[in-house]
Amino acid sequence: MNLRALGEERLITRLLRGHPVGQGVRVGPGDDCAVTARRGENVLTLLKTDAVVEGIHFAPEADFRRVGWKALARAVSDIAAMGGEPEHALITLALPPSLPVRRAKALYAGVYRCARRFGIGIVGGETTRSPDGADGAPGPVFVSVTLTGRVEKARLVTRSGGKPGDVLFVTGRLGGSLAGKHLDFTPRLEEARWLCAHYRPRAMMDLSDGLGADLPRLARASGCGFRVEEGEIPLTPGCTLAQAVGDGEDFELLFALAPRRAGALERAWPFATLPLTRIGVLTANLRERRLTTHGYDHFTHSAANR
Amino acid sequence: MNLRALGEERLITRLLRGHPVGQGVRVGPGDDCAVTARRGENVLTLLKTDAVVEGIHFAPEADFRRVGWKALARAVSDIAAMGGEPEHALITLALPPSLPVRRAKALYAGVYRCARRFGIGIVGGETTRSPDGADGAPGPVFVSVTLTGRVEKARLVTRSGGKPGDVLFVTGRLGGSLAGKHLDFTPRLEEARWLCAHYRPRAMMDLSDGLGADLPRLARASGCGFRVEEGEIPLTPGCTLAQAVGDGEDFELLFALAPRRAGALERAWPFATLPLTRIGVLTANLRERRLTTHGYDHFTHSAANR
Repeated sequence: MNLRALGEERLITRLLRGHPVGQGVRVGPGDDCAVTARRGENVLTLLKTDAVVEGIHFAPEADFRRVGWKALARAVSDIAAMGGEPEHALITLALPPSLPVRRAKALYAGVYRCARRFGIGIVGGETTRSPDGADGAPGPVFVSVTLTGRVEKARLVTRSGGKPGDVLFVTGRLGGSLAGKHLDFTPRLEEARWLCAHYRPRAMMDLSDGLGADLPRLARASGCGFRVEEGEIPLTPGCTLAQAVGDGEDFELLFALAPRRAGALERAWPFATLPLTRIGVLTANLRERRLTTHGYDHFTHSAANR
Repeated sequence: MNLRALGEERLITRLLRGHPVGQGVRVGPGDDCAVTARRGENVLTLLKTDAVVEGIHFAPEADFRRVGWKALARAVSDIAAMGGEPEHALITLALPPSLPVRRAKALYAGVYRCARRFGIGIVGGETTRSPDGADGAPGPVFVSVTLTGRVEKARLVTRSGGKPGDVLFVTGRLGGSLAGKHLDFTPRLEEARWLCAHYRPRAMMDLSDGLGADLPRLARASGCGFRVEEGEIPLTPGCTLAQAVGDGEDFELLFALAPRRAGALERAWPFATLPLTRIGVLTANLRERRLTTHGYDHFTHSAANR
């Protein structure tokens, strides 16, 4: 069997079987970031690696300055989703020898712009060759970013702390990333830091693959099901519900909050230009995955409904 | 101008111009690892990223188990060269969809074997697609590894602490990596830890590009020149001097030690199967780069000799 037939999720599951766990690991593979701790230290370390590939995550003719921004900003979004702050980044590039130098510099300029915006130090990296194809065509550009971060023990939020009855919120508007937003998004770092300081969510993640793929992950990690009211999902103007659920690369925050704190959060939310929307709740039935319109089920994976 | 015309070293120099430095950075780009510190903590963090690419660092028909070992072991060698111990790794793979699943698993098995050998936790990573070429040929396999490590402040060794008169040592025998050793080498972690605990070198690095490329880097970082006696360079059996100096991927340690400690180190060196060889000295003239045979200069870049 080849990888196409197996699919990415099953591949990862198989590859992770029997992986060495190591010491001081609080959160291993499967959350937005890994979390490690050293004895006697009050601050946890966050570790994230993320790659963008030409022809998969961006087009060959894309503005490489925006590609560089995106490559680092994706990882910043993951650090934010754990309640942390980014610290240091390592940048690995594989570039075809025929690439104009100005394009490599544009890519780095985008990385640096993002680093400055979020106070990140670029501490190292590597540049290697992307080999030409058999037909002499240049190999694809690969950009792999590793970002470290820090989070106070009391502020760490994972995907797995949600409880039945928790209210589900999303920031911003969903859908339409392919129209260009995916290269220019702002990671919700400031908002996540404020949130974790004042209204600590029980579970949180960033929306990278779309609400339809990511919400089931948060719910499963928390041992819960969910019910979402379709009409409450905040749509990017001009986007359909299907786009909001399926496009991916929104890089907004999805989080679960204890119900008694939900109203207070809505009143206190200080980011006037960024909507905060209550879209549903976590439920006790692990197999419940409901999207409803005015309370009517469109589809369900719920065993309870059969 | 394209990257081929510019060359890798000049590319890196240009890309690093104006890079954001960030907080708590003790050593940035240019050493074997980056070194970061948090306030009040006595242990420094080492960060290394390293990539191997099919068609550049390994052949398509290579045993992927050995490729996986190599991918992580290269980074272990860099952590060792700073006097540190590895902690946690993140593995990013870009794989063509046509790749057989068993080959992806073999690659991971090699990574895991290396991780277990050196007590490293695999805490995360990413798997993405390597796009097919225009002719339909599968894209190259990329393996990018990030490894974190720790080192006590008092044991950190960089490339830049060497002083004129320091004795230059190498471990092991040099040359011949292309015959296969480059996939099976053992990073000198145990040896480097012992060395830094008992005979703290003033400067150290691992030999990844060959003595001919790496020694000038250590000397330059230390603000020194060097003199090396050709007959003292330990050759892998069957290898020429040119191979020992130029092949690269030896992954042995090169270090500079205060002269008054050199004899004691030679007597105390406890690793019976790994040779330790005195090959020359650092000198005060930054432009001196001498390789001599029985004291006779073969070539020199020394301004002092003109």
